[in-house]
Parts: sequence; structure tokens; C-alpha cells
Amino acid sequence: MEGDPTLRLRVFNLNCWAIRYLSKQRQERIRLIGDVLRQEGFDLVLLQEVWSEQDYSNLKAKLGGCYPFSYYFRSGVIGSGLCVFSRFPILDTLLYQYSLNGYPYMLQHGDWFCGKSVGLVVIKISGIVFNVYVTHLHAEYCREKDGYLPHRLVQAWELAQFIRHTSKAADVVLLGGDLNMHPEDVGIRLLRGWTGLRDAFAEATRFEGCEDGCTLIPNNCFTVKSELLPFPLGIRIDYILYKAVSSFTVKCEEMKTTTGTAPGTDIPFSDHEAVMATLHIRREGQAAGANLGTAEPTLVDVVTEARTEVGVGLGAARRQRYSTGRMAVLALLLLLLQAAAALGTLAGLAAGQPFPKLSFSLLAFLAIGVLLLATGLHLFHTIEVKMLQGTEEQMRMALRALQEHL
Amino acid sequence: MEGDPTLRLRVFNLNCWAIRYLSKQRQERIRLIGDVLRQEGFDLVLLQEVWSEQDYSNLKAKLGGCYPFSYYFRSGVIGSGLCVFSRFPILDTLLYQYSLNGYPYMLQHGDWFCGKSVGLVVIKISGIVFNVYVTHLHAEYCREKDGYLPHRLVQAWELAQFIRHTSKAADVVLLGGDLNMHPEDVGIRLLRGWTGLRDAFAEATRFEGCEDGCTLIPNNCFTVKSELLPFPLGIRIDYILYKAVSSFTVKCEEMKTTTGTAPGTDIPFSDHEAVMATLHIRREGQAAGANLGTAEPTLVDVVTEARTEVGVGLGAARRQRYSTGRMAVLALLLLLLQAAAALGTLAGLAAGQPFPKLSFSLLAFLAIGVLLLATGLHLFHTIEVKMLQGTEEQMRMALRALQEHL
Repeated sequence: MEGDPTLRLRVFNLNCWAIRYLSKQRQERIRLIGDVLRQEGFDLVLLQEVWSEQDYSNLKAKLGGCYPFSYYFRSGVIGSGLCVFSRFPILDTLLYQYSLNGYPYMLQHGDWFCGKSVGLVVIKISGIVFNVYVTHLHAEYCREKDGYLPHRLVQAWELAQFIRHTSKAADVVLLGGDLNMHPEDVGIRLLRGWTGLRDAFAEATRFEGCEDGCTLIPNNCFTVKSELLPFPLGIRIDYILYKAVSSFTVKCEEMKTTTGTAPGTDIPFSDHEAVMATLHIRREGQAAGANLGTAEPTLVDVVTEARTEVGVGLGAARRQRYSTGRMAVLALLLLLLQAAAALGTLAGLAAGQPFPKLSFSLLAFLAIGVLLLATGLHLFHTIEVKMLQGTEEQMRMALRALQEHL
Repeated sequence: MEGDPTLRLRVFNLNCWAIRYLSKQRQERIRLIGDVLRQEGFDLVLLQEVWSEQDYSNLKAKLGGCYPFSYYFRSGVIGSGLCVFSRFPILDTLLYQYSLNGYPYMLQHGDWFCGKSVGLVVIKISGIVFNVYVTHLHAEYCREKDGYLPHRLVQAWELAQFIRHTSKAADVVLLGGDLNMHPEDVGIRLLRGWTGLRDAFAEATRFEGCEDGCTLIPNNCFTVKSELLPFPLGIRIDYILYKAVSSFTVKCEEMKTTTGTAPGTDIPFSDHEAVMATLHIRREGQAAGANLGTAEPTLVDVVTEARTEVGVGLGAARRQRYSTGRMAVLALLLLLLQAAAALGTLAGLAAGQPFPKLSFSLLAFLAIGVLLLATGLHLFHTIEVKMLQGTEEQMRMALRALQEHL
């Protein structure tokens, strides 16, 4: 940096789709990803959905020569799936687990079990402090009726708040990940507006790859074609975002995506396309990205829109809390009734055996099962209500601050 | 600050012991706390165990005149119990929920249900940015055989990491809370060493209150005397810690605790004593507390000791994960066996009805119950293992960095 005033940084981001026993050709693809990363020699590699620690260890062993520094973020039952490989020493790390992340009983979706999080690694290159964030937000399973939108918005808000609070001493902020949001979705406008992060794809001087920068495309043999029917070109949900915090400027010189297959082969890295950015970082008198990215009047609209959606989620969570609570109370009443009947029989109040023993016991077991399940769900939805309320309150405070500023 | 080079800040900290239906004379005490806070006019009030949002609202209504700004941190089933009242505007907030916090099945302890967290509020007074943290760590139920020590150490480590990462742009850092650790416990040495925070009690020029600054004393009519038998003076587990980050110095001019009753009454505020500090903040050329507080060779020992304890917890968590997993497998085998027997009977392989129907069904229900319970516990202990591993790994990295530095 002292000699050359510009630092060039090559960043690679990929959702690896490496779920043990479920993802197709997983080991072959992990090998392929390792090979290409070794050949290409990026500066920073941000990976998601590396859910097997063995896969991470294999990559680490293979990449030790060119990426001597790495970190795997552990969380949830399965793991966060997040890891970072770096050519430069990792000075510090921090993990923030999102407070809401779907429902444990939605086993077919499974997001809850991953403990979705944002991982931070701090890296210093030529005296410039980089705060590098890697994350993966809750998936969108049905765009028309997206029941997870409030949770994803809470995650986007917490991500933005976490970045704002932890990056104050950084010179440059980088965020890579599968955000599971289209570029114009409210969550990504919120994230960009509230942090001032800029989208490498939109800012790139040169671009090479899928049309519109899409990262989930029909051309990839692993994508579910029916899900992409409304989007003939595919969708863009994987991002590299950046900003300069102090007296630096960051420019995206080149942006690339893979286009359905890994370079030089006929199988893809993953069901997602990889995103690769070449960034130029230059020391300046005044930071360009130091302020909020979106003009504040627009930001007020974005936060208001997000807050409305969180409010909708809050209403739904309250209804769930109520109905599970009612179910628990009903099961408890049934049990008490049965206990009274049994006691009555024992005390000889009723003549003989009024119910068949088997159905009586089965009913009691059923009631106990329903009671436990409904209580568990009631507790879960109570937490959900609390966290949605908390986010709504924070957004309200943010809006007030923005409006006072205007 | 421009006219007077010294800013004087009066901070109040109290674990309010305000558990609905369980804490004695709760409403009376909350009223009393409100009265005294209004009379005394502190600058900052940090409260823990305000578990009823109604109590918070009552305090807020009462204190609106002298503390116009406040924030209540929501988390967990019951809530974090944390709140802040301030004479100065709260500019921003962030909540970090600890990744480990006891066990949901330890109903008699209940810590798990509170979603123990650290809350951050950012306040600016006379141009000085204060990062104010309020927290409450997992309780210690048995000092001789403290099964929660690894969880409390993970919390202390996460607290330290959260403070380090979020306070880089602050001028002054303040932490108040019930840390559930004695002054010489490894967790508090870790927290102080790794953040550079200083103990207001130890640094105070003047002190007035319970001997040794104790905050859980036999003289308080709400404390459990038998628990305090080994400590005739009581124990000190509630703290105000502080440091200057940039070109400021902080000095604790005066420190006070209540001594078993609230001032001018015969009942205590809570089962804990309140802690009150008067801090002097002065702009200097060089920050005094900017570096790590403990000399680095000592810090290496502290981190090593903490890591060993986390390792012990990791071993225990792995054993629990194994035994709950084995239990789930056994329950599944029993169910399969029963299914085979039932199918055999249906197919006419066995002559007549080999088992009494009732006991057969009860056994099946029992097996299903054990299977579900053991699976749930297995998942829980899997998360516990992941988080303990993650903390151990982070401590290992910290040790390496410290040793390289030496």
C-alpha cells in the first residue's frame, strides 16, 4: 500500500449446497471447489452451506498452502454452514446468531436447525482494517405467500445493526452471502439503506457471467426448474456488498459469476452460482461510503415498509401463541377430567368400570402428548412475539431518529 | 464539557428480583425503587430482573420526568429482564443473546427461559460517546459443584468479545450488571483482562456501604441465609465496570452500596444491594484504559484457565449428547420390536394374543415419549457441544495471538 496507493482484492463467494446425505455429488463438488480455489488464488473466500465439518477440514487441508488462514463458524444443531478462507491473517472473529430463524416443527425446511448467523472476521491488509461478514438468511420457499418474510426481515435488520455496531473502527466493510432476497426486495433495501453498503454487481465497471447477475439459474443442472418458472433468467440472491468506513474508497473493478458449470468442467460447483468480485481500495481524503447509502427520505419509506411487514408477522405470531396456549389448556382440562373420573371410580362413586381401560389410557396419553407439544409451541411463539416486538420497537426508534434528522 | 473539563456521571445498578408471583413484596419494592430513583436523580440507571413488562411500564411512567429516555430489552420466553433509564437521549441499541444459558429441563432454575443477554445502549453526553452495557449472567446455584460454570464462562467470553467488537468507536465504556461471579473468579478475571474494564469498587476513591462491597448479604431480609453461610460478610456479584477507549480518562470518585434496606425505609429494594458509582470523565492526551487491563503474561494464564474449564464442560456435554442419543436409539429399537410383534400377531404367526393389549399400548406410548424426549435433549446437547467447541476454538486463537505478541 505504501508503494502502490491502490490495493486490489479478489473475493469469492459461494453457497456450496453441501448437505450430508442430501446434496447431490457433494464430495465431488467440494473437491472441485477446492481445486478451483487453489488454482485461482483469491484473497478471500466466503462460503455458505458447508454443513459438514469434515468438508471444511478437507478444504482446509487442501487450501492450507494458498489460504493459510481460515475460520469455521459453529452454531445450531447442524452448524451455521459459514466459513472463511483467507490469504491474510484473521485477527479476530465474532458470531451473531439471529434471534428468529423459522420454526423447529417445519422439518421439511430445516432452516431452524442450522442456527442461521452472521460471522465476522477481522483482517488487516497493508495496514487497512477489513471487517468481513459472511451470512446466510432464511430461505424463501414460496414467493407468493412467504410466511418467513417477517423472520427474514428481522434477520436483515439484525444483520444491519450488527454491521453498524461492529464496523465503526474498520476501514473497509465487506459482506458476502446468500441473502435469499431479490435485489429489489424490502429486506435488501433495508440492509443497504441502513448500513450504506453498496452492491458489487450494480457498481462493477465490468461484468461477466449470468444475465442480470443471477445466481440461481435454470441452466444449472441442480436447480429445481419448476421454482424458477416465473423467472426465465433466474434470480439473484447471492451478493458481495461493500463500503469504505473511514478515509478510503472502494471500487468494484470486475464482477463475475459462474454460468451453470464450474470453469473447465461439466458439473456445477453447487445449485447456486459463485460470485467473484475484484475490488480496488484506495486511501482518500474523504470516505465516499461513510454515510447511509440511501437518501434519508427513501430510507424512512424502506424502514416503514419493513416495520409494517414485521407487524404483520407479529400479528400472526400472537395468533399462534394464543391458539397453542388454548390447545394446552384444553389438553390440561381433559386430563383433569380423566383424573376426576378415575378418582371417582377408585372411590367407588361409580358402579363398576365406566370406561374401557385401554381407550381411557390411550386418551390420557394423547392428552399428555398434546399438552407437552402445545406448551412447547406456546413457549416458542412467545419468544417469537418477543423478538418481533423488539425489532418493531427498534425500527420505530430508528424512524424517529431519521425523521428528527430530516 | 467545553466550560468544565470534567464530566460527572452518577450511575445506579440493581438486580431488582422482580419475578411475577414469586418475588416477595414485588410491587411495593418496584414502587420504592421508582421513588428513590426519582428523588436521587441519577444520570444512568441499569436494572436487571425486571421480568414483567408491566413493572417496566410503571417505572417508565413514574420516571418520565427525570429520566425521559429508556429501553427495555426483550428476549427469551420471560424476557431478558434488562432495562436502562437515562437522563440523556439513547441514540442506538443492540441486544446479544448468549449462545448458552443453562438447560430448559432445569425448570427449578429457570435461567434458560430468560434468554440471558447483554444489552447495549449508545448515549452521547457533551459530545462524549458512551457505550453502556447491561447484563445478567447465569446464576451459580452450588459453588462447590458448579455445573453451570462452563456456560457462565462462555457468557463471560461472549460478553467480552461483544464489548470489544462494538465499542471501538466509543469514548467511554460502562458495564453494569449481576455477573454472578465473585471478584476473583476466573470469569471476571477473563472479562476484565480481555476488555481492559476496571472495577469501580476497586478503583473508588471513597467507598460507603457493605463491607468488601458485598451485594448479597445476610443482613438483607430477602436473602437465603443458608446459602451465605460460608461467607459471613456476604458476596460481591453485582458490578459497575468502566474504561476509557479513546483520549479520555475515567475515575471513580465515589462508590456506594445499600446496606440491607432501601434508604429511609425498613425493607430492601431487592434481595441484591444496589450499586451506585460517581464517575469523573476527563479529556486527556492519551487514554489510560485503552490497552488490555491485565498484563499479557497474566492474561495468558487467565485465558488458559478459562479454556480448561470450557474443555471440562465440553467433555460433559459430549457425554450427555452420547447418552441421550443412546437412549433415543434404544427407545426406537423397542418401538420397532413392538411393531414387529404386532405385525406378527396380525399376520397370524403367533397363536392368539401374546401380550395384554393395555400394557402393550402403554409400553408403546412410553417408548414414543422417551424417543421424543431423548431426541430433543440430544439436539440440545449437540448445540451445546457446538457452542463450547466454538468458544474453545476462539480462546485458542486468542491465546496464540497473545503468545505471538509476547
